[in-house]
Amino acid sequence: MNVKLNPTTALQSTPQADWLDQIAWTADGLVPAIAQEANSGDVLMFAWMSRESLRLTVERGEAVYWSRSRNRLWHKGEESGHVQVVHEIRLDCDADVVLLKVEQRGHEPGIACHTGRHSCFYRQLHDGAWTETDPVLKDPHSIYVPSDSPSSSAA
Amino acid sequence: MNVKLNPTTALQSTPQADWLDQIAWTADGLVPAIAQEANSGDVLMFAWMSRESLRLTVERGEAVYWSRSRNRLWHKGEESGHVQVVHEIRLDCDADVVLLKVEQRGHEPGIACHTGRHSCFYRQLHDGAWTETDPVLKDPHSIYVPSDSPSSSAA
Repeated sequence: MNVKLNPTTALQSTPQADWLDQIAWTADGLVPAIAQEANSGDVLMFAWMSRESLRLTVERGEAVYWSRSRNRLWHKGEESGHVQVVHEIRLDCDADVVLLKVEQRGHEPGIACHTGRHSCFYRQLHDGAWTETDPVLKDPHSIYVPSDSPSSSAA
Repeated sequence: MNVKLNPTTALQSTPQADWLDQIAWTADGLVPAIAQEANSGDVLMFAWMSRESLRLTVERGEAVYWSRSRNRLWHKGEESGHVQVVHEIRLDCDADVVLLKVEQRGHEPGIACHTGRHSCFYRQLHDGAWTETDPVLKDPHSIYVPSDSPSSSAA
């Protein structure tokens, strides 16, 4: 008896590739990723992931992004120690954005931003001006070694 | 006495243009926008904004995005009635991502997704497969008029 394999069924036999194939990657092979603190619900940061970085994120249980400025894998916290333990990974309706629910480690309260703040979204629009509303929790000069200070949001 | 005007000071005399000029727009003139429900903290959706859509968002107090699939301004809820009243607008450290804290109107609980779900992030990764974890709150066929059903995430 011949059994016709449906392409979807065939893919399901390689589950690891399957869930990555279901993502609508950009032409550059990336997907936007939002990191949200699991317990507070605070949106901490926005970054990009490559196929490899998302695969590694699942494998390690810690957020691994793709740094577009440095053009390489970026294990969040590799310099700062502020790693993100991943509790949950979600995908949106168009399969082109990923949401990570994370625990921000290495400092209490958690520091996700390279400026030493809890969240990268520390500026708020007030009367036509961006106003810094969230405090610096730790001097960034004491987070990073001087010879390898972060460019942009690498942390 | 000559007073040297610092360029930043000079810009501050046109506050409306100023805060928009401080955003690091993409080459296409867009900025990624994350919509988060103000009271629950739930991340509802991810979309893009143009300069004009962000200006209109502030002017109206309701989210106006730029639909890349339809190549036009998209007043969220224009078809579905599921408008987003904007409580707060935040900008990240690199000035290239915007976070909106919104109240999702038109249904209780709020429906942000064109599939009739609360959030667009209704799929969760479980054992190597994306699993739908959040229920459909309203049949999308009853949300949109049949002659103008939404493509992609337009809602």
